[in-house]
Amino acid sequence: MARRNQHSKEALRELALDAVQRIAERDGPHIVSARKVAHEIGYAPGMLYHLFENIDDLILQANARTVMMLTDTLRQAIQRKKPINAVLAMASQYLALAQQNSRRWQLLFEHAMRNDVPVPSWYQHQTDTLFELVEQQLALLAPEKSSKDVTLAARSIWSAVHGVCLLAVTGKLDVGGPVQAPKIVESLVRHYLLGWTLEK
Amino acid sequence: MARRNQHSKEALRELALDAVQRIAERDGPHIVSARKVAHEIGYAPGMLYHLFENIDDLILQANARTVMMLTDTLRQAIQRKKPINAVLAMASQYLALAQQNSRRWQLLFEHAMRNDVPVPSWYQHQTDTLFELVEQQLALLAPEKSSKDVTLAARSIWSAVHGVCLLAVTGKLDVGGPVQAPKIVESLVRHYLLGWTLEK
Repeated sequence: MARRNQHSKEALRELALDAVQRIAERDGPHIVSARKVAHEIGYAPGMLYHLFENIDDLILQANARTVMMLTDTLRQAIQRKKPINAVLAMASQYLALAQQNSRRWQLLFEHAMRNDVPVPSWYQHQTDTLFELVEQQLALLAPEKSSKDVTLAARSIWSAVHGVCLLAVTGKLDVGGPVQAPKIVESLVRHYLLGWTLEK
Repeated sequence: MARRNQHSKEALRELALDAVQRIAERDGPHIVSARKVAHEIGYAPGMLYHLFENIDDLILQANARTVMMLTDTLRQAIQRKKPINAVLAMASQYLALAQQNSRRWQLLFEHAMRNDVPVPSWYQHQTDTLFELVEQQLALLAPEKSSKDVTLAARSIWSAVHGVCLLAVTGKLDVGGPVQAPKIVESLVRHYLLGWTLEK
């Protein structure tokens, strides 16, 4: 077992966050607990409470890394594309990431705060940044739309794409027959945006 | 404890299927097991294997009731409406049912066959009937589209609406701020269908 003075506080935090992601990927997102994480890095569970407020804080900090990875990937997908192609590329990347990192991605979306505590504002700010990437493209695509319209459209597109991801990752998409997830995502985004921009 | 000869085989089947739904609603969809179901109706677990092939069969038979309820409700939603309004009404009813029967509905979509056995054809036929209701309206809306286009559109609309339901039922929709599920479903279906029908 490693000794506490082997690692700085910051290094320990990183070790613990790595361990959360590793456990989620290896054993499933429901298995992550303070005891498991501590065991994984060879420390006593109590040590984690010097570094994180509670298990929610630990998981949120790990999920924040996934959000940052998502944000980076979506930002790269946009590069110099026309708005409609930028949104299509973001949606397609979102699906690809979900499929490649399905358990880490399930941890992101299946984590529920204990005791119905609201999500802290630093975390909300990070997820807002993700939505802003979509909203910026929608505002470029249809400058005449109100910010309320843009907000609703961004949430609608996200819910739809996210829904396809959930169905794909949990193997439920084939309930509807052999239609592939990327085709569905493309159809959804393309037709939604066409209808949205043409709407009187 | 009830005695076996108190109930006919058919009555016992109904009792067991009622029990699956009651346990899912009361204790959560993950709790349903042969032991729990048997205990709920006052029989030994072994008795269930005279009535159902295995636990998958028991849960599928219970889920088939939910599919039938969905089918009936969607069929009623269509009545004499124009196709676009019929699809909007079906989507809205789908969301309402998911929200009103969230755990029974989770049992429907979270149940995974043990050992990757394929879903039996009688069950697949029932879910196909659900998709056909949407496909019929899409074919009326755009008679010039190929059946391949109609199939993709029906799956896309279902995935999107289903995605919103999943996010709403698990309390994850508010990640994107205070936009209500019914508004998102309406926006998705309306804009998708507008884009789909106007597409060259």
